[in-house]
Amino acid sequence: MQKLSTAILGASGYVGGELARLLLGHPHFELKFATSENFAGKLISKVHPNLRGATNLKFCKISEVEKVDVIFSCLPHGSLAPRISEIEKLAPKIIDSSADFRFENPEDFEKWYGHSHPAPEKLEEWVYGLPELHREEIKKFSKIAVPGCTATAAILSTAPLVKAGVIDSSKIIFDLKVASSGSGNKPNAGSHHPERAGVLRSFKLAGHRHTGETVQELKLKNVPGYSITSTPVVRGIVCHAHAFLNSEISDKEVWKIYREFYSDAPFIRIVKEAGGIHQLPEPKILSGTNFCDVGWILDENSKSIIAVSAIDNLGKGAAGASIQCANLVCEFEEKAGLEFLGLHPV
Amino acid sequence: MQKLSTAILGASGYVGGELARLLLGHPHFELKFATSENFAGKLISKVHPNLRGATNLKFCKISEVEKVDVIFSCLPHGSLAPRISEIEKLAPKIIDSSADFRFENPEDFEKWYGHSHPAPEKLEEWVYGLPELHREEIKKFSKIAVPGCTATAAILSTAPLVKAGVIDSSKIIFDLKVASSGSGNKPNAGSHHPERAGVLRSFKLAGHRHTGETVQELKLKNVPGYSITSTPVVRGIVCHAHAFLNSEISDKEVWKIYREFYSDAPFIRIVKEAGGIHQLPEPKILSGTNFCDVGWILDENSKSIIAVSAIDNLGKGAAGASIQCANLVCEFEEKAGLEFLGLHPV
Amino acid sequence: MQKLSTAILGASGYVGGELARLLLGHPHFELKFATSENFAGKLISKVHPNLRGATNLKFCKISEVEKVDVIFSCLPHGSLAPRISEIEKLAPKIIDSSADFRFENPEDFEKWYGHSHPAPEKLEEWVYGLPELHREEIKKFSKIAVPGCTATAAILSTAPLVKAGVIDSSKIIFDLKVASSGSGNKPNAGSHHPERAGVLRSFKLAGHRHTGETVQELKLKNVPGYSITSTPVVRGIVCHAHAFLNSEISDKEVWKIYREFYSDAPFIRIVKEAGGIHQLPEPKILSGTNFCDVGWILDENSKSIIAVSAIDNLGKGAAGASIQCANLVCEFEEKAGLEFLGLHPV
Amino acid sequence: MQKLSTAILGASGYVGGELARLLLGHPHFELKFATSENFAGKLISKVHPNLRGATNLKFCKISEVEKVDVIFSCLPHGSLAPRISEIEKLAPKIIDSSADFRFENPEDFEKWYGHSHPAPEKLEEWVYGLPELHREEIKKFSKIAVPGCTATAAILSTAPLVKAGVIDSSKIIFDLKVASSGSGNKPNAGSHHPERAGVLRSFKLAGHRHTGETVQELKLKNVPGYSITSTPVVRGIVCHAHAFLNSEISDKEVWKIYREFYSDAPFIRIVKEAGGIHQLPEPKILSGTNFCDVGWILDENSKSIIAVSAIDNLGKGAAGASIQCANLVCEFEEKAGLEFLGLHPV
Repeated sequence: MQKLSTAILGASGYVGGELARLLLGHPHFELKFATSENFAGKLISKVHPNLRGATNLKFCKISEVEKVDVIFSCLPHGSLAPRISEIEKLAPKIIDSSADFRFENPEDFEKWYGHSHPAPEKLEEWVYGLPELHREEIKKFSKIAVPGCTATAAILSTAPLVKAGVIDSSKIIFDLKVASSGSGNKPNAGSHHPERAGVLRSFKLAGHRHTGETVQELKLKNVPGYSITSTPVVRGIVCHAHAFLNSEISDKEVWKIYREFYSDAPFIRIVKEAGGIHQLPEPKILSGTNFCDVGWILDENSKSIIAVSAIDNLGKGAAGASIQCANLVCEFEEKAGLEFLGLHPV
Repeated sequence: MQKLSTAILGASGYVGGELARLLLGHPHFELKFATSENFAGKLISKVHPNLRGATNLKFCKISEVEKVDVIFSCLPHGSLAPRISEIEKLAPKIIDSSADFRFENPEDFEKWYGHSHPAPEKLEEWVYGLPELHREEIKKFSKIAVPGCTATAAILSTAPLVKAGVIDSSKIIFDLKVASSGSGNKPNAGSHHPERAGVLRSFKLAGHRHTGETVQELKLKNVPGYSITSTPVVRGIVCHAHAFLNSEISDKEVWKIYREFYSDAPFIRIVKEAGGIHQLPEPKILSGTNFCDVGWILDENSKSIIAVSAIDNLGKGAAGASIQCANLVCEFEEKAGLEFLGLHPV
Repeated sequence: MQKLSTAILGASGYVGGELARLLLGHPHFELKFATSENFAGKLISKVHPNLRGATNLKFCKISEVEKVDVIFSCLPHGSLAPRISEIEKLAPKIIDSSADFRFENPEDFEKWYGHSHPAPEKLEEWVYGLPELHREEIKKFSKIAVPGCTATAAILSTAPLVKAGVIDSSKIIFDLKVASSGSGNKPNAGSHHPERAGVLRSFKLAGHRHTGETVQELKLKNVPGYSITSTPVVRGIVCHAHAFLNSEISDKEVWKIYREFYSDAPFIRIVKEAGGIHQLPEPKILSGTNFCDVGWILDENSKSIIAVSAIDNLGKGAAGASIQCANLVCEFEEKAGLEFLGLHPV
Repeated sequence: MQKLSTAILGASGYVGGELARLLLGHPHFELKFATSENFAGKLISKVHPNLRGATNLKFCKISEVEKVDVIFSCLPHGSLAPRISEIEKLAPKIIDSSADFRFENPEDFEKWYGHSHPAPEKLEEWVYGLPELHREEIKKFSKIAVPGCTATAAILSTAPLVKAGVIDSSKIIFDLKVASSGSGNKPNAGSHHPERAGVLRSFKLAGHRHTGETVQELKLKNVPGYSITSTPVVRGIVCHAHAFLNSEISDKEVWKIYREFYSDAPFIRIVKEAGGIHQLPEPKILSGTNFCDVGWILDENSKSIIAVSAIDNLGKGAAGASIQCANLVCEFEEKAGLEFLGLHPV
């Protein structure tokens, strides 16, 4: 079978680099164009040193991209929507990892991003790229808005509980711990190693923009707490979703709720062990993978449940999810090219 | 003025080492005995390499300790209470960093520690060693039970809000991020560097024993959520206390609540800046200090407040707090020997 | 083509876990047995959490292993040689990652390991498993002694220079910086996270046992300096080989020496860039790969060359090298199953 | 006794911040001015968050500095020399942590810094601020050029051996491992946390400018090897000096050489233990201190010695050394204000 041709727009960032790595190893996709206005003409392995020897592809400008089967856009938030009509001409299928097309209602976009949507009439052509919630829709669409990384963790941690109606959905607290690569590859005062190493920095305790998509996807009536702490790791998110139980529930019943909800989700693993040092989802072993591990602890004392999810922010949180959606859109095996199991220890 | 003589019981652990460092630099205390049944006869600097050249003191056995003015006990939980009558003969003042005498009611001890208290009749002789809540009592007592490290962070983050009655005290969620030194100096599978480095491990999401003292000190009617995540730092705790507001409140009013509550607390700093990379309490810069930095963010969307506190678990969370209490008990300046400002960057 | 059956002896350690990961993804090998006397009966994914969901294989005892095509032995040093006659019956091909059969002369083994070799008559059946030096021999042998991890880095950094005769081989200094996983998965005082995190520990500055194989493979007449520093990373080795030049040489000539020496080595990449932040080999981006990146800097002032190599100690330093050798022994493509490109950033 | 007044020029950087911390705790110095052209008018604790609550001092411009007793200059390399005549009017004593006045011969400055010295006639007024080599001269001078951080580690590791004539001084190799704070507080591509975390980066393997002062102070006839590796720690330098022995020597003799050489040096500790995990100098426990720990290992096999030194690059490597020199210049106790013992664990 001939491989489908692909292009990555905005390929010099971390998500773009991870996508390049995944596409170079993918059985059905071929990476033909990788754009960067700054690095046009340079080997992509100059920016992504792990690709040394694996490709001689050079960055090009967006204006040089020719028609391909699938476009992966990693352009910054707000860059794709204004030029979407132009980009649509380059490929019948577009997978976007920015926030531009994640909202169903332009009002919600405006609420969380602070300005009106530049192409509201296009929103209905897009579907939210979380296969665990929208697998069948994704297969039918050709334009996929890949979720924000922390939103993926937040939504997947609690979707089964919200749907089952066992928690008080009006008072959920998402307390997320995140990695430095999630803020991109631009150096700044806060990312300077002497400042960032060893830090437990309360980065965004309220008003994080991913709250909006979480509300949309979980169909919440109230805005949940949504706090982000920067930790001294490079990849990974762990989400603790604290929720009060509507009534007493057994651990076995919760098992059933999660198992059923994720019965056909190849990248969800329930991690809940009774002993050892790996009892609950932990992102360290997920680097480079597309897994989202989920688990929970019932707290009898506070009559609450703490749901836990862990992902690689560049994997299931961005590039991996993009490939997973592309696989569905192109009718490939959902796991194609995403078989890497992760390293231990690392 | 002649220095008061002191002994550290259980001086080979991390809290004992930190206490030794602080006592060696203290203007009014002299370290005369440091016990370790395992290392008796060896220089304490063999175990605490930062003390090289600063002292020739050797570990001795508890049985060799002679009468001193103040005893600092760093014996493991459950070790002091059964022999308290014997230890009381060695010094008129005892500062204990274990959990043995933290509870007012033996029933509470039993609930959280799983067995009945070995000396319940002694509990009334002890006071909970948190000067920010009990300064005047501490001055009057001679036996001080120093709080658990995460409890210190949890209590100090929210005590002003609870007292002011502005939050729903029945639904507080404490989400704490902790360091590896908090688990002591005994190697185990989970502390092995390849496993522990880079980890965001959901360590204890429910049932943590420090919950009990937090309930007692905040006089909570409901048990709060109390979750601990192990992070890849060596020292430090950051506590995020999520609480729902009883009614709308302005940031200015919250400022007033915290300022008044902590008006006479020399180690509490309100950290809440509008810009820069150090806007809220962060434990990295607190290593070696006795500070507890506190701050908060109001979240209009979820009608909640996220209170933040940060400490060094071995400082304000254990050894520093012990010295602070000893200063009060001995009528010294509260800050004596605790002037270290912390390092930046580190 | 039917897959060849394999067994891993001593599969609960880090090298065994990495081998299991590689074999589960290998196109031509099938993992049938994974032994652990301690964990027999338990899922291998209990010990190697990255393998969750990828296999239901359980550990078994060595006594339960049936005949297979290839055995990978990860038994501790000194464990295979005494029972080699027994193990030989289990498979026609054995790849061993211990030091038991690395030496040509039993005297050398005795010098560096402190006791006489238990099966000296067997040594001639084995070949040193460094394809970059012994590719054709490896193809002809069926028993391969995989090099020590630091030896791989040391030898590959300088082999071209030694062979070309451009450096003073009597005065080489290997200064190696290593990771914590290289010391295995047994916790100890030095691997305890609070002690090991952030450390630059002069671990073994003289007398390291890998010196012996380095001498053998580089055919050195003098024992070189060979110093190891423990650094706070989990995977990776970087080797700085300091050598004095016999006479002036140009950078271009050195390029030629390395290019020719490694012309047919698919896992060697020359990394020597003029700008950017990735100018020389750096192990961080090699985690999980089988690459050995090499480079150098000429120092006109001191008339010396500093050769640099970087590997993943569990990859090219152990498990990856084992697979590479097995591929050669079994006449598979040398890179089969070793295509992972590594992550960036990580 | 009234405190001497001081000013820090260039106080917004890491060395300036560390100096401010030390001066705020110093018994005989008072910090009156802290300059920063960028932050003039802002609290110094905005930039150095560890100073919160300890001072209300604000940054001022250099033009606002009034006459003081001692000036500490932390201006960037090349900034002080051109305006030295102007600065000299502000204080009779100047302690400079830049490279501007470290060389005795302007030719050496030119060789290593690539341009001619802007005030060569002033060089003879300055002394190299390494008390362990120049204590008596420093007391007599009023202008002190504090050594480069890696030079301090390199020189102090081997000065006793070079003076004793027991090593081949023509073939020394300094292999240094350094921390991220040594490169200052300006973010750049290489200091961006995702790139810098977990790195073992061969940063400067030849031609490092500190080589020049090392040659000068050790009075070497040949330029030594001098290689720098960036490691993922924030503070600390460990130096491995590899040197070939002129003739056989016993460990006891080496002990004697080091002990005698450093007999009157209050900040040098010989660290060379037979067991445990702290056998040789390790910088982790030195953060915030002014110690330089030194040790060595004799290697019989390669007939060499590996001398080891460890410092805090911001302590003994810069700010601590500045205070130590100022103490000598002002005839204070050499250790005044430098009593901090360092933390363990950290």
